[in-house]
Amino acid sequence: MPSAAALDLTNTPHAAVRPVPPAHVRLAPGSFWDQRLRAVQVNGLPSQLRHCQTTGRIRNFERAAGQLQGEFEGYYFNDSDVYKWLEAASYALARAPSAELRQAVERVVQAVRAAQDADGYVNTYFSGPRADQRYRNLRDEHELYCMGHLVQAGIAHRRSLGSDELFDVAVRAADHVCAVFGPQGRPEPDGHPEIEMALVELARETGQRRYLDMALFFVDQRGADPPRLGGLGYHQDHRPVRQQTEATGHAVRQAYLAAGMTDAAMETGDAELLAASQSLWDSAYRRRAYVTGGLGSRYEGESFGADYELPNRRAYAETCAAVAGVLWNARLLAATGHARYADWLETTLYNGALAGVSLDGAAYFYANPLAADPRPAPGDQRGLHSSGAQQAVGAHARQPWYACACCPPNIARLLLSMTGYAYGTSSGGVWVHQFLPGEVEACLPDGQALRLQVETDYPWDGTVRLTIQDAPAQPLTLHLRVPAWAAGASYRIEREGNAGRPVAAAAGAYVRPRRVWRPGTVVHVTLPMPARLIGSHPRVQANTGRAALARGPLIYCLESLDHPGVDVDRLALLPTERLRPVPAPDLPGGLTALTGTAAVLEQRRASNDLYAPLDARPPRAAGDAPLTAIPYFAWANRGASAMRVWLPYLAG
Amino acid sequence: MPSAAALDLTNTPHAAVRPVPPAHVRLAPGSFWDQRLRAVQVNGLPSQLRHCQTTGRIRNFERAAGQLQGEFEGYYFNDSDVYKWLEAASYALARAPSAELRQAVERVVQAVRAAQDADGYVNTYFSGPRADQRYRNLRDEHELYCMGHLVQAGIAHRRSLGSDELFDVAVRAADHVCAVFGPQGRPEPDGHPEIEMALVELARETGQRRYLDMALFFVDQRGADPPRLGGLGYHQDHRPVRQQTEATGHAVRQAYLAAGMTDAAMETGDAELLAASQSLWDSAYRRRAYVTGGLGSRYEGESFGADYELPNRRAYAETCAAVAGVLWNARLLAATGHARYADWLETTLYNGALAGVSLDGAAYFYANPLAADPRPAPGDQRGLHSSGAQQAVGAHARQPWYACACCPPNIARLLLSMTGYAYGTSSGGVWVHQFLPGEVEACLPDGQALRLQVETDYPWDGTVRLTIQDAPAQPLTLHLRVPAWAAGASYRIEREGNAGRPVAAAAGAYVRPRRVWRPGTVVHVTLPMPARLIGSHPRVQANTGRAALARGPLIYCLESLDHPGVDVDRLALLPTERLRPVPAPDLPGGLTALTGTAAVLEQRRASNDLYAPLDARPPRAAGDAPLTAIPYFAWANRGASAMRVWLPYLAG
Repeated sequence: MPSAAALDLTNTPHAAVRPVPPAHVRLAPGSFWDQRLRAVQVNGLPSQLRHCQTTGRIRNFERAAGQLQGEFEGYYFNDSDVYKWLEAASYALARAPSAELRQAVERVVQAVRAAQDADGYVNTYFSGPRADQRYRNLRDEHELYCMGHLVQAGIAHRRSLGSDELFDVAVRAADHVCAVFGPQGRPEPDGHPEIEMALVELARETGQRRYLDMALFFVDQRGADPPRLGGLGYHQDHRPVRQQTEATGHAVRQAYLAAGMTDAAMETGDAELLAASQSLWDSAYRRRAYVTGGLGSRYEGESFGADYELPNRRAYAETCAAVAGVLWNARLLAATGHARYADWLETTLYNGALAGVSLDGAAYFYANPLAADPRPAPGDQRGLHSSGAQQAVGAHARQPWYACACCPPNIARLLLSMTGYAYGTSSGGVWVHQFLPGEVEACLPDGQALRLQVETDYPWDGTVRLTIQDAPAQPLTLHLRVPAWAAGASYRIEREGNAGRPVAAAAGAYVRPRRVWRPGTVVHVTLPMPARLIGSHPRVQANTGRAALARGPLIYCLESLDHPGVDVDRLALLPTERLRPVPAPDLPGGLTALTGTAAVLEQRRASNDLYAPLDARPPRAAGDAPLTAIPYFAWANRGASAMRVWLPYLAG
Repeated sequence: MPSAAALDLTNTPHAAVRPVPPAHVRLAPGSFWDQRLRAVQVNGLPSQLRHCQTTGRIRNFERAAGQLQGEFEGYYFNDSDVYKWLEAASYALARAPSAELRQAVERVVQAVRAAQDADGYVNTYFSGPRADQRYRNLRDEHELYCMGHLVQAGIAHRRSLGSDELFDVAVRAADHVCAVFGPQGRPEPDGHPEIEMALVELARETGQRRYLDMALFFVDQRGADPPRLGGLGYHQDHRPVRQQTEATGHAVRQAYLAAGMTDAAMETGDAELLAASQSLWDSAYRRRAYVTGGLGSRYEGESFGADYELPNRRAYAETCAAVAGVLWNARLLAATGHARYADWLETTLYNGALAGVSLDGAAYFYANPLAADPRPAPGDQRGLHSSGAQQAVGAHARQPWYACACCPPNIARLLLSMTGYAYGTSSGGVWVHQFLPGEVEACLPDGQALRLQVETDYPWDGTVRLTIQDAPAQPLTLHLRVPAWAAGASYRIEREGNAGRPVAAAAGAYVRPRRVWRPGTVVHVTLPMPARLIGSHPRVQANTGRAALARGPLIYCLESLDHPGVDVDRLALLPTERLRPVPAPDLPGGLTALTGTAAVLEQRRASNDLYAPLDARPPRAAGDAPLTAIPYFAWANRGASAMRVWLPYLAG
């Protein structure tokens, strides 16, 4: 059976935890992620394909194949959207067969096949009249980036459908890259990392070391002297990656690069490279990440800001950067088994990434701010820079597509493979990183398997019931993650009529019961989920005097449409004891909102002056108002509304 | 005697207040502004000229004249730096003759003259091989912007030195523009406004209405349908200027455009155009300006942000935008006589603009943040976008020059003409907008004059003594501005041995004593200058829980080098009663610092986590530490240091 895996570490020598492939994970029908994935599959993928067709992205392949006349349409990196769509659709077909989708995939695969040159090169922009301009500008023109996505699509297609139709194209493209680049060839890496991860995965899929070597070569060409890409931090070319310690430049590029570094390190055991990735992670997630897992605080260069520079309205937090963050965390988790990577993976998945797609699966965000207002400033509507990004600015309505459409198929491929990041195996152990209701079959390196049934209403409820359905006769460690937010967590093991004694479990770590697991044994995990208030590091100037509301893995936000007649900027959070989980108003899919009472801050200023003599008195309530908070990922699904994640608070 | 005026409204029909030209204002030697202007004149102008020479800016003119072979050097807008330098140097020569500077000016003037085409066109980039590409791209290529600065330089040269050598070049260039553009010609305005102000001033200088008509045409071509410049807010082309109500896009462009609109409105009495400028001003200064008068909160597009979007470290606040803000406020003040424009003019001049030049006059800032740290993030050092701006990022050391060197000669031309914005006349009235020690001769429309001696240690002391030296025999109103910050102000009139009774004066308005002024009469103005704390509008998220320290017109800041061994982010301001003005440490020129005691905030967090459960307790002092605050304009004159304008405060 094909694995449908995006990340297959079965034979990776230096992985601490090997992911259980999606083919071995079944989401309970109608459960949280099943709904999300179904929406992307049923609405998102067909809509994305139509946009690929109407915007010329498919025609570009037909033109490159000589089947169609006329000019290339769109941006020079548009092939990558088609590859990402193919990757997502392949995972979807492994999850739930569909003759219609399958035919659509095969038609697109044939178009890609036909567009490949005899030498393996494929890029529809640099075809026909521009064929002699290939590889003229690796820094800016994304050819290897696009071929990286082709390779990942080919692998996904093969691993999901057992077909070599697209995989062959990918291998020929990779062989072309290996022939042109390297110690004896061209030295430049691509200005936009991606092919590094892809080539390592291809080495895994084929067992061919030269793809790994090629990836390693690209990784170590960054920061060369003289610089290969101009030496800018934007491209992570300011110094050799092994000496990079601060998350720098374009956030998607940075996270893809670090993910590829981690991939290579797991294959080679290169401790220096792994340490560099971890050091970059420390910078990104200890000082430069949004509470949602969003990465990249600057519109300028779609980039990381300085430490603690985390503006809310002007958060860039590109959906692709959240996707990249999940890929990066998944790899560091696999390389090390450290819970902190599973924590940020969860945070990003449920918040920063998931916010990038609408509840119906067919409308997207490019930037993901943490505060928004329904009416943008006029200058926001049509800016000059960052073509793709600008379309997401303004009133921040979700869009079905973008001229620079990197995000829609990227979030689709991530979500449709997310079950592959929930479980893992190691020698003598099975890991539960994420709590997904359904079933999992974890195959151990020795060929034996553990089958688990997982029952939970996570993320709405923290009670998780894991029933052993089948297990080896030898002792086995069950590594159960206790999320960092789950203060007061416990677990107990019920077997043969014995309910078991609750054992306290430290948050932000794995508990590791080890025993011979008999079928019928139930592990009960209890993760208390009171509503809670989060505070920022005091250096985060945007959040001084503010708190974020959270429950379980979910960050919550306020939308003004739940607070008619109230100025949301006068609402202040109160201690959370009296907040109640209730069904979210006017939102489909059984979402849980939090309701209760907020303080309405006293309005003291007589004037509306921008600056005035300081009123040094602490904020005070003038009254109260009903409060409704919804999960951040679900914002902007009900029309124009102001939205706030970080709110003032009163100690009560 | 030449007036040396940048803005001459002598014959402008719809001006409420006409500026007294710099030729009639003498700064007391050694006084605050005299020191600043002298530094720019003695150190700044020669240094700037050397940079214009070594970077090819002068050679470009020689090449365009056919006197030199080779390629154009630098950016296509570099001519404007030379024109701005000529404008500044002209004012300087009117202030203090210098044979050396005069010769340098005349050599540059001859180079410009020689580079002009027979048809009047002059732009050294579009010369020689590129001559056939003229006006191919008005949106981006700054040809009219450059010619606007040529016109202003020509006018300044004539009004300062009585010579027509450069003025003739300017007139021929303007005539060329009038021949090419207009209702019967090309419709596009320049993507970077500037020529609008210049053409109106040329109409004033020549009495020729067609220059004014040309300016008005350009003003009203913005926001046309179809758009002339692409329709972006960046270029203020998103809607007709008369319908624009929000300060939008590139801040320098916006402020220059609005200044030009105000200029045109004063000539024609166009109330709609004046109202549009005032409406844009409301947006800029009531919701989008820094407390320093800095404009433009986004690096992206060097642009205005949304209302209340005023990040401190990432304040863009380009020096040129502060210059533009002064020009805009000066024009609105002249058009209306409203004190609010004089207030922001003062705030900008003493803070946001003056910070753009070092105390020695020869090193500059491009961006002017309100918080900075000595070590930048690696990505800040070499960014991708905004070539000019990026050079000013990083550790924010002042630079003697920039590849995009708009700011150095711009702040020079502003400061060397700033005495022209201090006083005004109207029918039967003389206006004191700014308090400059020295002498002024205000010539009234009826030909009579008021001569005043002004004695004050402003901005360090708020005691101002205005002695009437000569006055008409008729009653005259003295419009004396009481700054918005001057709570508790008063004035008294001492004459013929009678000390006079103090009269309370409302802040943010003019007091208007009217009488026959006899020589020897002294008006004593008392503007109390305690140190004070300023608070922001509650929607300014960056300043929640923070205050800025100010005294008189000056905003103060902390530099870490005055606080060795202390984490400046733990310092909190206390009530200001015990702060004392003292000579600033290690800073030349008699600057006044504020010293006293700051609270050191309790350090509560056990961990350094970016996010943690909220600690809802209000901040509390763990101890105290000596505090030294220096004027914001003087920061970064003593080497690398952290700097903060907005600090936490404790109610005490």
